[in-house]
Amino acid sequence: MTGKKKTAQASLEAMYRVFTVPEAPDSTLSRIDQDISRNLAGFLQEHIVAIERDLGDVVKDFSESAVPEKPVFVSEQTQFLLDKLVAHSVHTASPSFIGHMTSALPYFMLPLSKIMIALNQNLVKTETSKAFTPMERQVLGMIHRLVYNEDSAYYRKWMHDPRYALGAMCSGGTIANLTALWVARNHAFPAEGSFRGIHQEGLFRALRYYGHEGAAVLVSKRGHYSLSKAADVLGLGRSSLISVPTDDDNRIQTDALREKCLELQAQKVRILAICGIAGTTETGNVDPLEEMADIATEFGAHFHVDAAWGGPTLFSRTYGPLLKGIEKADSVTFDAHKQLYVPMGAGLVVFRDPALVGAIEHHAQYIIRKGSRDLGSTTLEGSRPGMAMLIQSGLKILAREGYELLIDQGIEKAKRFAEMIEERPDFELVTRPELNILTYRYCPAETQAALARADTLQSERINASLNRITKFLQKTQREHGKAFVSRTRLEPARHHRYPCVVFRVVLANPLTTQEILRDILDEQAELAGHEEARDEMEVLHNLTRAVLDAPRANRA
Amino acid sequence: MTGKKKTAQASLEAMYRVFTVPEAPDSTLSRIDQDISRNLAGFLQEHIVAIERDLGDVVKDFSESAVPEKPVFVSEQTQFLLDKLVAHSVHTASPSFIGHMTSALPYFMLPLSKIMIALNQNLVKTETSKAFTPMERQVLGMIHRLVYNEDSAYYRKWMHDPRYALGAMCSGGTIANLTALWVARNHAFPAEGSFRGIHQEGLFRALRYYGHEGAAVLVSKRGHYSLSKAADVLGLGRSSLISVPTDDDNRIQTDALREKCLELQAQKVRILAICGIAGTTETGNVDPLEEMADIATEFGAHFHVDAAWGGPTLFSRTYGPLLKGIEKADSVTFDAHKQLYVPMGAGLVVFRDPALVGAIEHHAQYIIRKGSRDLGSTTLEGSRPGMAMLIQSGLKILAREGYELLIDQGIEKAKRFAEMIEERPDFELVTRPELNILTYRYCPAETQAALARADTLQSERINASLNRITKFLQKTQREHGKAFVSRTRLEPARHHRYPCVVFRVVLANPLTTQEILRDILDEQAELAGHEEARDEMEVLHNLTRAVLDAPRANRA
Repeated sequence: MTGKKKTAQASLEAMYRVFTVPEAPDSTLSRIDQDISRNLAGFLQEHIVAIERDLGDVVKDFSESAVPEKPVFVSEQTQFLLDKLVAHSVHTASPSFIGHMTSALPYFMLPLSKIMIALNQNLVKTETSKAFTPMERQVLGMIHRLVYNEDSAYYRKWMHDPRYALGAMCSGGTIANLTALWVARNHAFPAEGSFRGIHQEGLFRALRYYGHEGAAVLVSKRGHYSLSKAADVLGLGRSSLISVPTDDDNRIQTDALREKCLELQAQKVRILAICGIAGTTETGNVDPLEEMADIATEFGAHFHVDAAWGGPTLFSRTYGPLLKGIEKADSVTFDAHKQLYVPMGAGLVVFRDPALVGAIEHHAQYIIRKGSRDLGSTTLEGSRPGMAMLIQSGLKILAREGYELLIDQGIEKAKRFAEMIEERPDFELVTRPELNILTYRYCPAETQAALARADTLQSERINASLNRITKFLQKTQREHGKAFVSRTRLEPARHHRYPCVVFRVVLANPLTTQEILRDILDEQAELAGHEEARDEMEVLHNLTRAVLDAPRANRA
Repeated sequence: MTGKKKTAQASLEAMYRVFTVPEAPDSTLSRIDQDISRNLAGFLQEHIVAIERDLGDVVKDFSESAVPEKPVFVSEQTQFLLDKLVAHSVHTASPSFIGHMTSALPYFMLPLSKIMIALNQNLVKTETSKAFTPMERQVLGMIHRLVYNEDSAYYRKWMHDPRYALGAMCSGGTIANLTALWVARNHAFPAEGSFRGIHQEGLFRALRYYGHEGAAVLVSKRGHYSLSKAADVLGLGRSSLISVPTDDDNRIQTDALREKCLELQAQKVRILAICGIAGTTETGNVDPLEEMADIATEFGAHFHVDAAWGGPTLFSRTYGPLLKGIEKADSVTFDAHKQLYVPMGAGLVVFRDPALVGAIEHHAQYIIRKGSRDLGSTTLEGSRPGMAMLIQSGLKILAREGYELLIDQGIEKAKRFAEMIEERPDFELVTRPELNILTYRYCPAETQAALARADTLQSERINASLNRITKFLQKTQREHGKAFVSRTRLEPARHHRYPCVVFRVVLANPLTTQEILRDILDEQAELAGHEEARDEMEVLHNLTRAVLDAPRANRA
């Protein structure tokens, strides 16, 4: 289909053609396909515009609400996508895009994805997936082994037994966490006597039957928002997700956790699950998993670990031990589209006990019949793509050694970046990296001195001003299009727990160099001197001087 | 990376290469990539083996449970995938694969998918998706308009307003149905007085506060199993999904529905939602949606329509009216990876009222902040790929006219196939196609005559024998690899509601010809004469003769 001025026709013949005739090698779409294969970085660099166009403006290109009556040529739609969509998409693979957990992909993932899409398997059942089914079970087994480290005989016994499951594949960490808590909830209220189980009778009758006043899930205040979403979906209510304070390193305070559990128990609230975090989303910290496991055992709670981010750290001999205790978890969430470097849309949860998943098993007449090998009987989702193929390929092509290198370089780069930040007088490191995530902010040396000395009120005023500056810097840097860091809000102890807006950096892209990191700091410092920032910088300066210039004596 | 006998190395340098150097044009993976682009049908035909290998045997190729220590070359893994995975995958695109809802894809979907994967956007937030965000909103708007047919001014007002959402994109129909019922549940128990809403306080307190004994969702017995899964997940319990009888055409009996609602009301059970089906999974029938809408209004229930399969019928001027009443639904599930012909992993739900989704809105500090345009605040999933790009491309390249042709040819082909089945004395049409799905079974003419005359016990015995034959034929035909029909179990009135196993056929692939359909019947008839079937066929024959040969007089 060339760009000639003829109109596309929706005839039955044209429809057959759409299903049988590939794009000609010289068509716009084929050329893009080849461009991407030959030089992905170049393609992205060339086609994604650097300077941000306001999203309110981009919206105009997507304002038509009616499905078009007449077909357009593939070439026409391709050109539209290039100009209007690709141009204003986000260069997530850029080494200076260090603000979120979406990074570059290994090259081989692209043609492999094409095979996956061409095969268009549906993993809900073997009849539409065949060999993909044992392959998915193998991937679940490999991650299970990475976490729980059972011996080969264990996996020979359990990995392919259709009556059990070592885990469940899903579209991402949110569904993985939801699946884990669904299992935990159902497991806590099994069938007994006249009660047919919560899966049959629901939460209301479960609590009445078992004589509880409620059911709670506990996690540190750094828990991912998907857990509160899961608490809502599961009928527990968001207020049943109990937020436990953290220490200065953003790790759960186990004393506070235990106290909270005792308190809930006294209120006749059933403790469904305790969630540990292996790599908090905002700061990359790891909870004291071993102690948490003990507390979970003490209260008969399911112990879940959200390792969506940090799980692959287990590949590293050096840093894997940071996750010690994860092998005591009843379930562990792992995201493949994060540090397994698989394209978007792949997560999974593994279960220590292969029978646990029985708590959510379901069947139907036309598929996932009892006794079948169909994976759909133990997943929250129904129809699902064969993403396991990409995970398996990553695990084999990169192997443990490869992932170890990726993990190690990320963590070491984060440590080095933290040093760089500390070496610069005009920046403040807010959270030190434990894994490959850190937070910091721009903060002039004199302001740092003032903060060290300020009283609570002064400190709040200064931090409020810094917050406005951080927001401005983050937004402006993103709009300028050279680099991207994200931002979040933390309550550091040294700032009297005042909510401070901070830059958040995730160092997972192996192509991010120290030069790039230095440039990012330079640009931020430079932006702080911009015209637009001037008023707020003056406010900050005055607040700073007010503290520094006040006679020492007055401050007692 | 060639196939030479050297070993792959996991050095940091090798890792950089993996992220920066594309596969060489003559590498195994590149060649496959090109093969697929040039001749997808040929590739699948050549590489997927026709004769089925036993799944228990395939498992052996996926028995290793440890993540390999050392990397393998891309070429090695590619060869492995070709020999062990692709070879034993399912040819879902084959025109004789008419057993499930996974069909062939339009050719342009392949290179477009590559662009999507190369861009690796994450739709949870605009910072990782930019223009993809308004594009997704547009797709939701277009499907909303297809269903609800509001005017352009309506969509100008609502489609891009970040405070509202016309729907939610998700990985498939299961999550779409779950999302709809989640919204319905939360909407039924809002904050009021001292009660902070079910999303905060959970189902237990919601029922107590509102003074209900339970909460129910009603759907016909043909409802998809995802609804019962949703009832479990949402804490309602599977027994709260009330199954309503259907008429002889597999449509819900509205009298029975209304009666059931009255009964539940008398028991102080809150009727959360009534679900209509537009295209039942097993038989492709459409519920009387208008009447159901009225009943939902009468009982103050959310009216949800599961149009995962049948939704795109709305593109057809001829058959669209079959779904009359769908525009009265509060929410409608649509699957894009079914009859929108998009690769696996794309579904959505649209809401009549753009404010409804507020019932499940959620926020976090580092993304989906209040007031942001981030789509993640109203989806069940977190990180999600940019599948909306493929849906939008389908809607523009095929357009309404193109989808209409696809829908029409499928329904007409199903009608023609039903005639073919009826013309053959040795087959019995079990359910007549309303959309493009039908069920039938092999049943010799003399047995049909016997069934027409048999008493209940005789009928049961004959049907039990036919069930064994149907299972054998379906399994054997699949194993022979030329064609695939699925099977399910129905309770036809004319067989005294005995559970009959039937072949289930879904005619969505435009390349399926009448010759192929005839061949499928021929092969089934031929398989019935096979050695392996002989014993059961003899049982059937004897049961048949016993009925036919009994003197008429005895049967009074």
